[in-house]
Amino acid sequence: MSSHHIVRDDQEPALIIANGEACSMELLNQLLEWSPFVVVLDSAIERVAALNIKVDVLLGDFDHNFTPDEFSSLQFPIEIIHTPDQDKTDLEKAIDFLIDRKFPAVNIVWATGKRADHSISNMTNIVRFQDKIKIVMLDDYSKIFRCPDKFEKWYTKGSPISLIPVGKAGGIMTQNLKWELTDDELILGYKSGNSNEVSEDGLVKISYTSGDLLLMECYDL
Amino acid sequence: MSSHHIVRDDQEPALIIANGEACSMELLNQLLEWSPFVVVLDSAIERVAALNIKVDVLLGDFDHNFTPDEFSSLQFPIEIIHTPDQDKTDLEKAIDFLIDRKFPAVNIVWATGKRADHSISNMTNIVRFQDKIKIVMLDDYSKIFRCPDKFEKWYTKGSPISLIPVGKAGGIMTQNLKWELTDDELILGYKSGNSNEVSEDGLVKISYTSGDLLLMECYDL
Repeated sequence: MSSHHIVRDDQEPALIIANGEACSMELLNQLLEWSPFVVVLDSAIERVAALNIKVDVLLGDFDHNFTPDEFSSLQFPIEIIHTPDQDKTDLEKAIDFLIDRKFPAVNIVWATGKRADHSISNMTNIVRFQDKIKIVMLDDYSKIFRCPDKFEKWYTKGSPISLIPVGKAGGIMTQNLKWELTDDELILGYKSGNSNEVSEDGLVKISYTSGDLLLMECYDL
Repeated sequence: MSSHHIVRDDQEPALIIANGEACSMELLNQLLEWSPFVVVLDSAIERVAALNIKVDVLLGDFDHNFTPDEFSSLQFPIEIIHTPDQDKTDLEKAIDFLIDRKFPAVNIVWATGKRADHSISNMTNIVRFQDKIKIVMLDDYSKIFRCPDKFEKWYTKGSPISLIPVGKAGGIMTQNLKWELTDDELILGYKSGNSNEVSEDGLVKISYTSGDLLLMECYDL
């Protein structure tokens, strides 16, 4: 559960645009300001090409009657990476690719919404990369990341915080939440930490000793 | 892991309309044909009222400056049930309510999409009701239910089937899937059965001995 990757402070996070529901252009533009290196997954390029965004890499298994080459002429230079491995999702392959390229962090959009199977797999699979790259998944309603084993962050009172165990997480301690946890266990499907909120303006502290917790900052629009 | 509730064959499934992303009217109308008893969660009634659907029950904690009484005059009779319990989600309370009323089955829509925390909690929390009521969650891309410990259904070749463990599920055996499982274990976040598919026209058989598996039939549109 440690987190020891070498962070290159001079490098901004990469951005992966996956193949789920598109986010608002406002969110996308915010992320693009900080994301010079953009990876688009598979046929999502058809929707991304229409947005006039600089794309660095198009990556996928290209297995659904989709020919990536037509997009090589749209922008130059665009790197097209064919990843036929059927044991991993395109999103996992894109994260592996960014780890190989030594990126310390990545923001991921369009990974939620639409198909429920892709959505839940994308949200939960990010925990397996915890020691290798810092991942934040975003959509118009949600900011999702693996809660580090020891987490501290300043929030305003009333900010919604959901703690979602990927399976089980144990030894959970919180400070400054409306419903505090004290050496508690959360079990997905049976005992969740959904829809908690920050008690007072100030630091929220969360720690846990086993398993994986997703921290979700989610808002109704 | 058994499933022993008494099924009253003469009773059609209820329908819960939750407070996530709206589905297509086509899907909603299909379900309404078979769902004479409709429960709407909390402020979703604001969106449902505009659809001219007969609603039987409006249920929620009504805690976000929302006054349900204005909707009592929209339709008559509508039963308004205030459920202030903060330890359960409105969806869980609605399912409990239907169990109390002896409904054998319920379809659930508008429970996915929008906020990721609600979406993942709604999808996974259905497993805890396995012995009490048959639950199917639907959106425009997905049909989600807890895979019974022994499951058989006829599918056409190529039908997408995703097996998503809610935590861990073990002793999984499959027949007639492209990537068969043989006494295998799936672990959410680490080893998922996402994006499998049916090998040949015919019966698919799935069985498992521990944990909870969600079976998702999902389609790209």
